[in-house]
Amino acid sequence: MNKVTVQCPGTVANLVCGFDILGMALNAPYDIMEVRLIDEPRVIIISKDGFPLPSDPAQNTAGAPLLEMLEELNGDTGPANRPTHPVGFEVSITKKIKPGSGLGSSAASAAGAVVAANHLLGNIFSKEDLVRFALFGEKVASGVKHADNITPCIYGGVTLIRSIFPLDIVPIAAPALHVTVVHPQIEVRTSDARQILRKQVLLKDAIRQWGNIAGLVAGFMGHDYDLIGRSLEDVIIEPVRSMLIPGFDAIKQCCKEAGALGGGISGSGPSIFMLSRDESTARKVENIMKDIYTRIGLDHHTYVTTINQQGVKVVA
Amino acid sequence: MNKVTVQCPGTVANLVCGFDILGMALNAPYDIMEVRLIDEPRVIIISKDGFPLPSDPAQNTAGAPLLEMLEELNGDTGPANRPTHPVGFEVSITKKIKPGSGLGSSAASAAGAVVAANHLLGNIFSKEDLVRFALFGEKVASGVKHADNITPCIYGGVTLIRSIFPLDIVPIAAPALHVTVVHPQIEVRTSDARQILRKQVLLKDAIRQWGNIAGLVAGFMGHDYDLIGRSLEDVIIEPVRSMLIPGFDAIKQCCKEAGALGGGISGSGPSIFMLSRDESTARKVENIMKDIYTRIGLDHHTYVTTINQQGVKVVA
Repeated sequence: MNKVTVQCPGTVANLVCGFDILGMALNAPYDIMEVRLIDEPRVIIISKDGFPLPSDPAQNTAGAPLLEMLEELNGDTGPANRPTHPVGFEVSITKKIKPGSGLGSSAASAAGAVVAANHLLGNIFSKEDLVRFALFGEKVASGVKHADNITPCIYGGVTLIRSIFPLDIVPIAAPALHVTVVHPQIEVRTSDARQILRKQVLLKDAIRQWGNIAGLVAGFMGHDYDLIGRSLEDVIIEPVRSMLIPGFDAIKQCCKEAGALGGGISGSGPSIFMLSRDESTARKVENIMKDIYTRIGLDHHTYVTTINQQGVKVVA
Repeated sequence: MNKVTVQCPGTVANLVCGFDILGMALNAPYDIMEVRLIDEPRVIIISKDGFPLPSDPAQNTAGAPLLEMLEELNGDTGPANRPTHPVGFEVSITKKIKPGSGLGSSAASAAGAVVAANHLLGNIFSKEDLVRFALFGEKVASGVKHADNITPCIYGGVTLIRSIFPLDIVPIAAPALHVTVVHPQIEVRTSDARQILRKQVLLKDAIRQWGNIAGLVAGFMGHDYDLIGRSLEDVIIEPVRSMLIPGFDAIKQCCKEAGALGGGISGSGPSIFMLSRDESTARKVENIMKDIYTRIGLDHHTYVTTINQQGVKVVA
């Protein structure tokens, strides 16, 4: 086998109160990537969708992680069972997760590339190794090695990054949840969304935030839907970033009134996600989102989906 | 029945990374309280141990919560099944948990008083009501209504206060753990220990802290001892408060080297607690604590105990 096709899920980072530490994989939208093993130690990027993404592998979110993997393959500390002949990768990307949507578009490319490449190599790297490589894609995309999209994209489900240096990943068993996402067609760059955050926060706000984070983890693990809902509160990031997203407050309030457990900004936005206990509520929530953006006159796209439990999936 | 005796457990607030939101009840030390129903709407405090605690009930940590309870009993919104005749309480306190030890001495008095009084009234108030009353004791003791000692003292086990306004209490199921506590005989007043904290924290430190809090909750609920150990890290409060406690760094490092999962300052100190998986490690940890304080020449008292799962207990 020298070619593999993978599905790379969109992801929701932060999950409202868990800035930089929590993330969740979605069953929709997802990218399709094809990775082919080549016999030269290089990486070739082929974009199939017309998004203006860099084709220089060192500047590409799928390419940079693969270059990192190749370096480790060829270095002194590479895995014992690495190939004995030179290898490289040719990557074709069909992007369905729009860059700048806040749904982990760059993470999907980075995670998909390394999972596919590892599959072709006979799975010689651990999932944690793959996260480590994929972080170089986020560095290229936003200037910051943040793992809260990459980790759920590779592991599936809801994941906690307890610590990034050293990397400490904790899968969190969450109950069945329905996720509604609206992507208003404006672009918020992750790097811009980071720059508007203050470097200092009030201790009293931090305490409120970590109460919510603890509550959210306890709600997920204890399958306590009400507690999940009460804990989906962000007093630090959302008050600043939501100003970049038209209609945010109205959407959040109306969706909760319609029965959503809660939700907020997906990653750095502009997408907004809402969690619901059942599909009919998730559909109601979708209609509310559509109504509000139609009234504002803003193009938008919606998804009604569930948590992806598997992460990047080999499909052929 | 017009008299009841209760055991009121010591508690460890904060649990290292969970400042103001996490707490745990201990099987040792504990106070003994006797509460007697009287037929006048007043509160009488009798101290049996010579600690210089205020006998004016409004200024006493056991008295203030009972006055609050009486006010609600006599108010328009009191419980339907309240007594039809005037009632009050006479409280005798035998204190074993030293005030200013960092082991929830004031919380034990406040929690014990309201649990005992409620028992005499036929348990007409909920546990959450009792926490609400007991908070007035903490207000008297330290100027701040913090619930991270009171809640585990009333509920038992490990508890999360997701939010204090409105009050949102979440019991966290923790695995069996052995707890070693050393109380060096210096006094750190909770109000002083609060004053030295900065009002602002770096966002990057807050992120590290909430990663640890999420990890600790996940470790408790998933019975993952290693994760509990890795998550017992505090980058915000401990670096400041530990300066008030002689020998803190040496104790922490040596106890961990001896096999303790981790630990830190109990509440606002000066007591230090360490968690261990088995009793023999907990005993080794006790010896290390004793050795270090003996070498420094500081009087100290140690406890080797377990998590108290019941909270305040009616014993007669």
